[in-house]
Amino acid sequence: MDFDMVSAIPMLERTPAVLGTLLGGLPDRWTQLDEGDGTWSVREVLAHLIHGENADWIPRVRHLMEWGERKPFPPFDRTFGFAERREQPVEELVEEFARLRRESLASLAALHLTSNDLAREGSHPEFGRVTLAQHLATWVAHDLTHLSQIVRILGVQYREAVGPWAAYLRVVRPVPS
Amino acid sequence: MDFDMVSAIPMLERTPAVLGTLLGGLPDRWTQLDEGDGTWSVREVLAHLIHGENADWIPRVRHLMEWGERKPFPPFDRTFGFAERREQPVEELVEEFARLRRESLASLAALHLTSNDLAREGSHPEFGRVTLAQHLATWVAHDLTHLSQIVRILGVQYREAVGPWAAYLRVVRPVPS
Repeated sequence: MDFDMVSAIPMLERTPAVLGTLLGGLPDRWTQLDEGDGTWSVREVLAHLIHGENADWIPRVRHLMEWGERKPFPPFDRTFGFAERREQPVEELVEEFARLRRESLASLAALHLTSNDLAREGSHPEFGRVTLAQHLATWVAHDLTHLSQIVRILGVQYREAVGPWAAYLRVVRPVPS
Repeated sequence: MDFDMVSAIPMLERTPAVLGTLLGGLPDRWTQLDEGDGTWSVREVLAHLIHGENADWIPRVRHLMEWGERKPFPPFDRTFGFAERREQPVEELVEEFARLRRESLASLAALHLTSNDLAREGSHPEFGRVTLAQHLATWVAHDLTHLSQIVRILGVQYREAVGPWAAYLRVVRPVPS
């Protein structure tokens, strides 16, 4: 499926609400642990999503519109804020993400991007030439990746509890490397 | 994390709402396809969840309480209703699942299961002895598995659209066999 704004925006709009519905009021036990060594906790994923709104998605749209391929995007720190966010209530992190997402989408709308803009190219610090449409499609797929990750983090908490059913339930299995 | 009703019920209660928030009003393009050959579409996953409420979760609780290990659970048809459900609106399937889940949870509450009940054993047609607690933990983990699957089905629709970012986004990669 090709990227278009009409499909992308409704998905970007709903991610905070989906996270709120999934995590709001959930007993703390569910969100205390991660998936094992070297994996992220729910709070860390939320910190990463928050930092994406602040430093990646709209900032890189603006960077690409201003610089095109002449200047690569500044690198993005994937684990920014992890230490600080570790004690914050999950609901608070979701609310902060929701507020920032609303602002991001307002900024996106205000840019009135045309299909010509979507075809414009920028330079990624690691893999070079990328289009604005690819960047925006990645924003959506990135939401879904981390939503799926949070669901997995919840699921693995029952890894032992399901007994022999573990063989059938992909979500309780260890993360593939 | 051990199974307990206090953690499990809030998760079982929210699954239909999470699916409603994720899928309600989403442009049809997102839910028309599956993840590739031999994988399920969003409607098929929802048909499977609906059939679970009708034929697996509470029926097997009752079966175990009545028969213990003396009689294995009847087998469960994982693809029941797939053909019939293929044209049904996604929202309608989510609503049906939500109604059935409310009924299941009302039935569960009415059983007033004790910790002795949770330790009772039944017989699974394939892997033998299982406890009621394992069955109920599996109900929760099964919700999360299929929620994560639906998120992946959405994500893979942008497999091509994200361009070189595909290498970083687990959700757009082909399903591991």
